[in-house]
Amino acid sequence: MTPTIELLKSHRSIRKFTDQPLSRALLETLIEAGQAAATSSHVQAYSVIHVKNPDNRARIAELAGGQSYVATCGAFLVFCADMKRPTEAAERTGARVVRGMTEQLLVASVDTALMAQNVAVAAESEGLGICYIGGIRNNPQAISELLALPDQVFPVFGMCLGYPAHAPDVKPRLPVAAILKEDRYHDDQAAVEAYDAAMQAYYQSRKGGAKATTWSQNLTPLFDTKLRPHMHDFLVARGFEMK
Amino acid sequence: MTPTIELLKSHRSIRKFTDQPLSRALLETLIEAGQAAATSSHVQAYSVIHVKNPDNRARIAELAGGQSYVATCGAFLVFCADMKRPTEAAERTGARVVRGMTEQLLVASVDTALMAQNVAVAAESEGLGICYIGGIRNNPQAISELLALPDQVFPVFGMCLGYPAHAPDVKPRLPVAAILKEDRYHDDQAAVEAYDAAMQAYYQSRKGGAKATTWSQNLTPLFDTKLRPHMHDFLVARGFEMK
Repeated sequence: MTPTIELLKSHRSIRKFTDQPLSRALLETLIEAGQAAATSSHVQAYSVIHVKNPDNRARIAELAGGQSYVATCGAFLVFCADMKRPTEAAERTGARVVRGMTEQLLVASVDTALMAQNVAVAAESEGLGICYIGGIRNNPQAISELLALPDQVFPVFGMCLGYPAHAPDVKPRLPVAAILKEDRYHDDQAAVEAYDAAMQAYYQSRKGGAKATTWSQNLTPLFDTKLRPHMHDFLVARGFEMK
Repeated sequence: MTPTIELLKSHRSIRKFTDQPLSRALLETLIEAGQAAATSSHVQAYSVIHVKNPDNRARIAELAGGQSYVATCGAFLVFCADMKRPTEAAERTGARVVRGMTEQLLVASVDTALMAQNVAVAAESEGLGICYIGGIRNNPQAISELLALPDQVFPVFGMCLGYPAHAPDVKPRLPVAAILKEDRYHDDQAAVEAYDAAMQAYYQSRKGGAKATTWSQNLTPLFDTKLRPHMHDFLVARGFEMK
């Protein structure tokens, strides 16, 4: 196993940070590492907003569902899917651009995620901790206004970065036998049941707060309501019409 | 700069591979490294199909637009967004599950991309080369049938892995000043124009085939037609209704 694989396997979300900020040079290094990820047809359909304004960070912490570490981490980034830059660049060369295709939403979301994951890995290699903030999709319209995001750009997730002030356990993942399938999809209910037992044991023994639920039980709040039902209309309003 | 960041910055797509296959043990190590990536609410909404059947690999190579290295690389993986496993797990605990939300499409696509990028980084740290295959979205229905993908599962992209048999140049990326913005979105047309010149110079000087176009010019075929117009109806048919 390479040192890089050991690093990848040591990932856990960090939510408590020291006061030490990130230098601008380090932040640029991380973004460059992010940009080195693969990108669909080299379109590089992303922008990253580095939120420095303390009032905006406090406001985003609230809008993301009361995640105070958005305000207190060393640096807070909002990763945006950006189809504005490439579509306008094509238009300036004379292309008649079609917008709002479902495929464009996928391309931009995937490009943004690949790039962000490289930023996360680069940051952790530098001794930083990170935490993705999907909660910015709780209130994407308000956050888009705060960051002056134009049409064809939307916030996919945020990321807290900083020097860790705690060391939580690494959370067990599903068995590889459930995830990796040969030639054809197969059901993996038995693996899920084994994993439910493993997660329950983990929750009972972990540092920083015991609970006794299984993985399957924890999924209920994700699926028994219309999760973030505003996302469809929000995306359409930003020019991602999913045609 | 850490060795891991140097590795990230050395990424380029590899499309020529030696005959050496990947061992099963290495493949499992890579998938485990992938699974260590962050996942939205720990939902782990992905499955990976390892396509071993040579006929199916040849067929996917065609369906992806004639990408022969899909058939010849050391291992070919199809990364699938998978909402079947978590929704059914929640149902077994008694949850009344809502499917087809736009947010669920985003969560599953992003989870899959974060996971895949860790696999890519892990593979490159082991001396392998990789190439993402977005072309599987050219014919996602046929590929889904070939891999027996059920409802609530769709192929986001493929990935070729193997031991490299060529060493292409690293392709320049947009200036970091275009990607990284402080507090508010700002236009980056000037940076794009500088980048167009840099890409034109790169294409003229690179190993393995000169061309003279700019980045902006290269984007025209992506945007002047309805790119993969089947994706909307395909996703709806697989249970991703984008409500």
